[in-house]
Amino acid sequence: MTERLDSRNPGFDRAFAALVDARREPDADVARDVAAILRAVRDDGDAAVRAYTQRFDGHDLDETGWRIAPAELQQAFDTLDPSLRDALVLATDRIRSYHEAQRPADRDAVDSTGMRIGARWTAVEAAGLYVPGGRAAYPSSVLMNALPAKVAGVDRIRVVTPTPKGEVNPLVLAACHLAGIDEVIRIGGAQAVAALAYGTDRVGRVDVITGPGNAWVAEAKRQLYGTVGIDMVAGPSEIVVVADRDNDPAHIAADLLSQSEHDPTSQSILFTDDAGFADAVAAAVDRILPTLATWDTAERSWRANGAILLVERLIDAAPLIDRLAPEHLQLAVEDPEPLFQAVRHAGSIFLGRHTPEAIGDYVAGPNHVLPTGRRARFSSGLSVLDFMKRTSFIRCDAGALAAVGPAAVALAEAEGLPAHALSVAQRL
Amino acid sequence: MTERLDSRNPGFDRAFAALVDARREPDADVARDVAAILRAVRDDGDAAVRAYTQRFDGHDLDETGWRIAPAELQQAFDTLDPSLRDALVLATDRIRSYHEAQRPADRDAVDSTGMRIGARWTAVEAAGLYVPGGRAAYPSSVLMNALPAKVAGVDRIRVVTPTPKGEVNPLVLAACHLAGIDEVIRIGGAQAVAALAYGTDRVGRVDVITGPGNAWVAEAKRQLYGTVGIDMVAGPSEIVVVADRDNDPAHIAADLLSQSEHDPTSQSILFTDDAGFADAVAAAVDRILPTLATWDTAERSWRANGAILLVERLIDAAPLIDRLAPEHLQLAVEDPEPLFQAVRHAGSIFLGRHTPEAIGDYVAGPNHVLPTGRRARFSSGLSVLDFMKRTSFIRCDAGALAAVGPAAVALAEAEGLPAHALSVAQRL
Repeated sequence: MTERLDSRNPGFDRAFAALVDARREPDADVARDVAAILRAVRDDGDAAVRAYTQRFDGHDLDETGWRIAPAELQQAFDTLDPSLRDALVLATDRIRSYHEAQRPADRDAVDSTGMRIGARWTAVEAAGLYVPGGRAAYPSSVLMNALPAKVAGVDRIRVVTPTPKGEVNPLVLAACHLAGIDEVIRIGGAQAVAALAYGTDRVGRVDVITGPGNAWVAEAKRQLYGTVGIDMVAGPSEIVVVADRDNDPAHIAADLLSQSEHDPTSQSILFTDDAGFADAVAAAVDRILPTLATWDTAERSWRANGAILLVERLIDAAPLIDRLAPEHLQLAVEDPEPLFQAVRHAGSIFLGRHTPEAIGDYVAGPNHVLPTGRRARFSSGLSVLDFMKRTSFIRCDAGALAAVGPAAVALAEAEGLPAHALSVAQRL
Repeated sequence: MTERLDSRNPGFDRAFAALVDARREPDADVARDVAAILRAVRDDGDAAVRAYTQRFDGHDLDETGWRIAPAELQQAFDTLDPSLRDALVLATDRIRSYHEAQRPADRDAVDSTGMRIGARWTAVEAAGLYVPGGRAAYPSSVLMNALPAKVAGVDRIRVVTPTPKGEVNPLVLAACHLAGIDEVIRIGGAQAVAALAYGTDRVGRVDVITGPGNAWVAEAKRQLYGTVGIDMVAGPSEIVVVADRDNDPAHIAADLLSQSEHDPTSQSILFTDDAGFADAVAAAVDRILPTLATWDTAERSWRANGAILLVERLIDAAPLIDRLAPEHLQLAVEDPEPLFQAVRHAGSIFLGRHTPEAIGDYVAGPNHVLPTGRRARFSSGLSVLDFMKRTSFIRCDAGALAAVGPAAVALAEAEGLPAHALSVAQRL
């Protein structure tokens, strides 16, 4: 049953701590299976990828073809319903524009000793984007992963996506066309991630792999972190909504259910200061649920992981929200500013009554790939920076070396590193 | 034997590929041992930490004390040799000043639809810094890890450092004092990393763990990535030096040896366009080696992993350097600019004849924690950003929602997410 907690009750602290610590990530031990797949792809390359694809996706890549032709992407885009095409184009424009402002500035300056010091940002050469097949194949996810890479200046973007029994999702292909993807390869699972990370004859090696996937994909990325860069360790999605009684309960109910419908492991939490409003939202959830095509998933998630928390004043929610460090935080109140200023840990914040979280999923501009599972304590949403890296640089002339060299020699000697000391001392 | 390759020889491509792919990271399978230690600390907390410390470091924390008192840090600083103290203070000032310019700017703007969109950076609450005990206990490493965290505004920095048989390194303690470390805890190994990540009664949980360590420490960080943020997966250090014949061969020899002396797995590579100069550097290495207290390590590294590569023109080295993506790149030539512009992948670049890499290890200002093992293809040196995270935010008014809402509804419906669509449509 959906949890209901009142911060004025004596058992609240313990119950809230249990809510914070509840592990919604499956304990299923896929690590060993994934390690075996990675090893096979590293050792046997395309042969292993083809065999796993036959086994898991039920088609032979040498017959169905490894790649989806650019003409097929173009055609998927051209034959889209016009209103949908306009929506995708609007989303693309807004997402691109938001991410363009993320491009980092280089530094290059000379200090008072005459030393030139700076940092230069460059894009990675190739990025791999995982796009799930089946139900969770979202064109918005293609845009949110590909556009930051494009804006960063990545030379080549490879999409991998499983096509069970050869089936493709035209919306995803259209989004690939719009985002300017270079290649779409019909492979999925841990074997696709391994092929991207190690490179095979048919699948070029990439430097960074991003994009959502099932437990095998997530574990493959985790195991390959360090061999390649990855976006993040992703868990079930979550939302915290703070709402006062002046909201329409049905609005807030839909906001909560828009997370719940993603997956049974998703979590939706409401903070309010009004018990009557809490009842009204709970009733609205029950009323809306049967009307949703996604009712089964949404209901399981809401019953298992949903929670309604009553606080004396809404501002009291701030420290509790920081402990949850939610992926999404929606502040559906007249003046969201005090709570916005009081909260420190959240992936993305949606301010005011007119900003349902779904706006951020599609068209606002900021990235919808956000830290889950309390990781907003230490990590950020996907950005242009995930596809770039910084090279620092230093140039001494004789004067600058004379100014700082003796200190370097003293420290190197104290650390017992004589060649370090010598490399400086010889030049003084 | 130190490898010697000439790019004009027919076997060069294959030999260079072998050099690029050579794995210098130990294959030792510590993953299982580390997993067991993490589990024990997660389940048993301080009791496990104390037992491992007794076993690996040979002292009982309940007797020797878990923490090193702030007064002891202060005293270590006060009793330092004055020239060393001045060197540490100079390094601190320069490192702090460089990192202060890394602080990211927030964004907050209203677009043409009336939508307010932005991003806010905040520091993590607590950071853990691993400081190795014994030979590799470097005060410069304390500064390079702690100062970015301080500049980021981290509330609390915990240092863990093993003190085998209770012994401490006064230089490290002095650096902790200077960097403003909040706590120094006498624990090390995978158990210390686990205690920081999970939190125990005596060791507070942190959000990010950085700092160098042995294979167990590195593997513990890798396994805990996602539970906490980590700096990077670190491997043996490396340098590529590009030098023309106008350098003093002894200078270049010392530069190469300053990497070799770190560890037998370190790698030093020289690119030059002059065979006679290559011989002179090799001879200088042999001459300097016996004079170093670190000769044993340096000689093993240089013989096993060192290489001298002859190219026709120095600019030809650029694409080869990109394949190596070295941690350190030193361009010891009269005009380093063409090579500097031609190279894309390197952790840090040292320009001109007066900039030995060791300057960057201690006093230049940029961070010396840099990507190794070809990871400069996709990752960057440690920075203030590693201790911060970004929260995006969005605020629609009724007009902005009307402008973009219909597109969000269309996309949500196309993706089969009716609660997403409803949450927007209800408000239109």
